[in-house]
Amino acid sequence: MYLEKINSPEDVKKLNIEEMKVLAQEIREAIIKRDAIHGGHFGPNLGIVEATIALHYVFESPKDKFVFDVSHQTYPHKILTGRREAFTDEAHYDDVTGYSNQNESEHDHFILGHTSTSISLALGLAKARDVKGETGNVGAIVGDGSLSGGEALEGLDFAGGELKSNFIIVVNDNEMSIAENHGGLYKNLKLLRETEGKAECNLFKAIGLEYIFIKDGNNLEELIETLKKVKDINHPIVVHIYTQKGKGYKLAEEDKESWHYTMPFNIENGKPLNEDIEDYCNITKEYLIKKMKEDKTVVTITAGTPGDFGFSKKERDELGSQFVDVGIAEQTAVAMSSGMASKGAKPVFTVVSSFIQRTYDQLSQDLCINNNPATIVVFYGGAIGMTDVTHLGWFDIAMMSNIPNLVYLAPTTKEEHLAMLEWSIGQQEHPVAIRIPGGKVVSNGKKVTKDFSKLNTYEVNQKGEKVAIIGLGTFYQLGEKAAKLYEEKIGVKVTVINPMYITGVDEKLLEELKKDHSIVITLEDGVLDGGFGEKIARFYGNSDMKVLNYGLKKEFLDRYNIGKVLTKNRLKADLIVEDLLKF
Amino acid sequence: MYLEKINSPEDVKKLNIEEMKVLAQEIREAIIKRDAIHGGHFGPNLGIVEATIALHYVFESPKDKFVFDVSHQTYPHKILTGRREAFTDEAHYDDVTGYSNQNESEHDHFILGHTSTSISLALGLAKARDVKGETGNVGAIVGDGSLSGGEALEGLDFAGGELKSNFIIVVNDNEMSIAENHGGLYKNLKLLRETEGKAECNLFKAIGLEYIFIKDGNNLEELIETLKKVKDINHPIVVHIYTQKGKGYKLAEEDKESWHYTMPFNIENGKPLNEDIEDYCNITKEYLIKKMKEDKTVVTITAGTPGDFGFSKKERDELGSQFVDVGIAEQTAVAMSSGMASKGAKPVFTVVSSFIQRTYDQLSQDLCINNNPATIVVFYGGAIGMTDVTHLGWFDIAMMSNIPNLVYLAPTTKEEHLAMLEWSIGQQEHPVAIRIPGGKVVSNGKKVTKDFSKLNTYEVNQKGEKVAIIGLGTFYQLGEKAAKLYEEKIGVKVTVINPMYITGVDEKLLEELKKDHSIVITLEDGVLDGGFGEKIARFYGNSDMKVLNYGLKKEFLDRYNIGKVLTKNRLKADLIVEDLLKF
Repeated sequence: MYLEKINSPEDVKKLNIEEMKVLAQEIREAIIKRDAIHGGHFGPNLGIVEATIALHYVFESPKDKFVFDVSHQTYPHKILTGRREAFTDEAHYDDVTGYSNQNESEHDHFILGHTSTSISLALGLAKARDVKGETGNVGAIVGDGSLSGGEALEGLDFAGGELKSNFIIVVNDNEMSIAENHGGLYKNLKLLRETEGKAECNLFKAIGLEYIFIKDGNNLEELIETLKKVKDINHPIVVHIYTQKGKGYKLAEEDKESWHYTMPFNIENGKPLNEDIEDYCNITKEYLIKKMKEDKTVVTITAGTPGDFGFSKKERDELGSQFVDVGIAEQTAVAMSSGMASKGAKPVFTVVSSFIQRTYDQLSQDLCINNNPATIVVFYGGAIGMTDVTHLGWFDIAMMSNIPNLVYLAPTTKEEHLAMLEWSIGQQEHPVAIRIPGGKVVSNGKKVTKDFSKLNTYEVNQKGEKVAIIGLGTFYQLGEKAAKLYEEKIGVKVTVINPMYITGVDEKLLEELKKDHSIVITLEDGVLDGGFGEKIARFYGNSDMKVLNYGLKKEFLDRYNIGKVLTKNRLKADLIVEDLLKF
Repeated sequence: MYLEKINSPEDVKKLNIEEMKVLAQEIREAIIKRDAIHGGHFGPNLGIVEATIALHYVFESPKDKFVFDVSHQTYPHKILTGRREAFTDEAHYDDVTGYSNQNESEHDHFILGHTSTSISLALGLAKARDVKGETGNVGAIVGDGSLSGGEALEGLDFAGGELKSNFIIVVNDNEMSIAENHGGLYKNLKLLRETEGKAECNLFKAIGLEYIFIKDGNNLEELIETLKKVKDINHPIVVHIYTQKGKGYKLAEEDKESWHYTMPFNIENGKPLNEDIEDYCNITKEYLIKKMKEDKTVVTITAGTPGDFGFSKKERDELGSQFVDVGIAEQTAVAMSSGMASKGAKPVFTVVSSFIQRTYDQLSQDLCINNNPATIVVFYGGAIGMTDVTHLGWFDIAMMSNIPNLVYLAPTTKEEHLAMLEWSIGQQEHPVAIRIPGGKVVSNGKKVTKDFSKLNTYEVNQKGEKVAIIGLGTFYQLGEKAAKLYEEKIGVKVTVINPMYITGVDEKLLEELKKDHSIVITLEDGVLDGGFGEKIARFYGNSDMKVLNYGLKKEFLDRYNIGKVLTKNRLKADLIVEDLLKF
């Protein structure tokens, strides 16, 4: 076994080609086994094994620096750079993050997990090298859908026009994004594959870059030979390598989309170990499919991640032009939504909380200044969700809710969510975003009769005294729980409010509370700074009302334990009651 | 005179070529005269006159819909679509905004003033047309630097790969961005110009788009002939037109950068009517030039707007590789800054408040998660600055200051600003942004000795009692003024605090204030929602301290009167004191 002897790239250099081929096989087996037990990015990592070995064979990391875009393809790199055990020993699986991370290794240069950033980040490394008078190769490995993102294209443009020194962009072309490719540039990659890189019409050359093609990106000889040629080059170059996503695991080779990322599965038959349960994604998808069938002007939009919301390839194909995948291009998704809504179509952009971050200016300028009635459904917002630092879902409230004109809604149940969706798609007045609650689906069967066009009108679901608890979205039920516990302990029934509107304050209601309440508690599943609760605190700033804001501390956390985080932020019913009693 | 008969595009269609040529001349004269008196975008508008006439001659606006990118080139369009008087009659100059605006005319489809949005917005119009089963041409007019922005490139990619219906992208190539072009794609435009569109290596074709070239984009015959050919085309096409920026005003033809936008000037000699006074841009520029000379690892970065901060072409050339213009590509600017800072170089990204909005995700993911010590200088933040709705500077605090790890500083004087810059560039711990104060330069000659590495330590500049005024950045002096007025009226000296740190609360100081203060006032030159003051309100929420937050209401305003806005928001010393006395 060669793998167990690899503790750094130095050890790769000691192998001959045949040994490296065995090493590649061993790396594949390790990744398949780890992902089957632990879950993780699968297909992209299996495809990049040989290219990673070749990179470390030819270059001198960490003096030579490569940035792996979005980190979908970073496992082989981790294995070869001193982090082998995290892929071979189950007890150590959690020793490393799923993403590039400079705190783990000097061979990583950034924590990154959003797409399309690698070229621009690496340009910074190259520029630092140049102004400091240093040497060495710098580059980015980009692919798997990341090329279509604006930041990547900006980076290509700068590299092609401005950088006059060594820079190597490895375009890992596995014929896929996360799902199938969308966008014109992929037609060019296809043409280049078909002509073995010889087509005159070449996107990279057109943008000012030298270009070289590697026909078989899983062939070590070819990789090494070509990379040796580009090593120490004195200007930017694109190395276009054609690899096979999912290589080495038959099911993943055949169904590349499903095997982009996997939850734990049975290696023998590929079946997931955990059953699917009803979630808000599926509920939303079923609703949207029904709605689109009824109304041909309703269009669902995704930015390269249709599977995140449960839309299968078959369903997408059936929806035809009513399902738009813009590729990884969130900015365009928001702008297109605004444009569509401006002329009476009904776009619904479905997006992950962490990725809506990529569109602040489009939300503000393209959408909200124009006040167009598009709908945005934000998934995985809040602390109960993805716990990787690059995918935190707690910042969308602070980012979005301070933009004028936007109506950002926080449903607390399945019924509210669907009622809000129905209202939003039907109305013509406001840009609306809906924040899917975190955690399990809550359903109470109640018919929602609220007229959501009466903006910023909160619902009082329990009228009490002294204390009012305003529980936003995910944490509404926590508010109910705290109220119940307080009543049990003290015998006083408190008021429980479902605000529903993240973007506005119900001044009338808050004013009324002053009569018979002295404490208002706010609960939100987002960062406190810039969030919902602070608006309530501001409202009461000049009064005798005491306000206690509960939410998440402003900090980046990585792979946290949700229970501990909630406890630390005192987001538990008993801790809230404890605080109240102390008060 | 033909111009006075043009009340809608219908009237353009009645003219023959020779008459249209005269009309073009009349439009030019009107624009030159208006800009000389009123100021406005100059060179881009002079260059696009013929193309706009041809568009309205060939197409049927508003059924046919064109989106003018960034609105730098929208004056001739406004003139031809019923808004002539605003360009010919001085009394009506302010009847229209400087930007595209659907509230002004059915021939405009969006309010827009940020670059690179037109293609994606127009894609939405096209998609709406298609799902509603409508007909008509849809397209975008893009150029003047906008092509390099990520959103534009994403839009091109979608158009080239996904849209299967009519879509016309007019690339107005005037050989310029706002300043000179930067980026590889401009090399391709050059090649295409030189080969009259015949080069095989064609960026647009490579991205899947059909392509046609118009050699003289100021030639009406050629424009009309070609546009007739593409009218009603059943798929996307790029029409690359080569125009002369500044055409018709000799000085603007010769110095395109200076004449991109102009303040009022003397038509005879081009001299500005108002003299330059010392401003924070110049102060910053002089400092940075000195700093870059001393330290070769300091690099100033701009995203296509070097002139905004006073860097002349000559100065940029002298700075060589220490001055980087990434083109209009703010995302790349932030990512590159992070990359550079990660390896010991000292990047300073200079950016307008309204445009830093284009980088939320890059600030969060590329920069702050990685905690790299880059410096960002934010200009034109606050209400005292650009008053166009597309360029408001009040949202940067709410957008940026809730991102963990970022240290966002608000200097109140020239001396503090320079001290903060010096500290930021020298330190290796934090990503730092500095928000240039609004209004005239304030200089008190005081040496700043503060150690800024002691984060979130506010400065008490006047110790008083009962009332504490925390005046952030621009409004610190307002706080001093209110304090003085209050003392004059009541005889009580109040506490005046310069917080300096937007991103953190000085808990120790705020705690101490509880002893002998009952009211804390916060003043900030930004939207209240998600801003600085709310953090203070939250801090005191559980105490008896009363908090009054002053700042700007969450709303979009367009071309507002700053005095009225300040009064409305009670951001005047007498109004603040009035509120205090009522209290």
